[in-house]
Amino acid sequence: MASTGDPEYKSSSTPAPASSVGVDHSKFDLILRFLLFAASVASVVVMVTGNQTVYLPVPRPAKFRYSPAFVYFVAAFSVAGLYSIITTFISLSAIRKPNLKTKLLLHLIFWDAVMLGILASATGTAGSVAYLGLKGNKHTDWHKICHIYDKFCRHIGASVGVGLFGSIVTLLLIWISAHSIHSRVPK
Amino acid sequence: MASTGDPEYKSSSTPAPASSVGVDHSKFDLILRFLLFAASVASVVVMVTGNQTVYLPVPRPAKFRYSPAFVYFVAAFSVAGLYSIITTFISLSAIRKPNLKTKLLLHLIFWDAVMLGILASATGTAGSVAYLGLKGNKHTDWHKICHIYDKFCRHIGASVGVGLFGSIVTLLLIWISAHSIHSRVPK
Repeated sequence: MASTGDPEYKSSSTPAPASSVGVDHSKFDLILRFLLFAASVASVVVMVTGNQTVYLPVPRPAKFRYSPAFVYFVAAFSVAGLYSIITTFISLSAIRKPNLKTKLLLHLIFWDAVMLGILASATGTAGSVAYLGLKGNKHTDWHKICHIYDKFCRHIGASVGVGLFGSIVTLLLIWISAHSIHSRVPK
Repeated sequence: MASTGDPEYKSSSTPAPASSVGVDHSKFDLILRFLLFAASVASVVVMVTGNQTVYLPVPRPAKFRYSPAFVYFVAAFSVAGLYSIITTFISLSAIRKPNLKTKLLLHLIFWDAVMLGILASATGTAGSVAYLGLKGNKHTDWHKICHIYDKFCRHIGASVGVGLFGSIVTLLLIWISAHSIHSRVPK
């Protein structure tokens, strides 16, 4: 980071710290993007593999694609998985080109914030349908189904949980990028 | 903004533009925070006033608090309304104390990102239950209710729509704060 070509900036009476070109969170950023990738893949795989058929005695299957909420969830986290791969490469290129780094960090905040909105809404959407499946709603006569589709509901629940984790990772990504940019502003 | 006491910073061969202490988005920030306040109040009021009782012939009321999803939505947007008032004052104080501005912008990004997560998930949560009320789900025998509770569903739909608008405003707030901080980094 010392060879950025940026001039040393000393503004006030306190000596400039070693981090005068900014705190470097690149490693955390890469770790979090890998975690987001892992969480996205896990949540999609767990939800897609949750299909279950019960015989009452007629075979009645439960599939994630029967609910638009779960379809949206799978679509959102598939996009998040792809997004985390692309931004990992962008993040790596930012390490190699420090003079572009601030610009890239700004773009990463922009898109990370969009992803946070998508992932949080997808988690909420799937979570509320999962809750209805678990508890039902007597006011609307929507009966619970999780005592019948036990495996399906376990998968949905785990998937939503991992999705929540992925949303929090995206939040941390925004925090880290914002802090990186902030540390480059002269005091 | 000219009386910040910061030394003029001229780093490269190109002349420093007039905005060498950063682009000032304070006005947009305040406008957006007011929009977030208006959207929060509107979505809460519209949802809370949607209660409807139909006689089939037994009286059967529909209230937002019968669904945990709508309760979460009302709670989240009540918090957002309060949050927008508090951060409006923080944003105003940042205009008066320009030397603290970058620090305040960083804190605003942190909390705006948290609010974005909460509001997006609340919108998704309420939206998916509203969709179930509108369309039902034949796979789980959850019948639609919106052909009976027409006024209730109109209120819920409008409230979720305004909530989506509020979430997008929060996204814009993050973008603006990030861009403000970025513009203060010396090129």
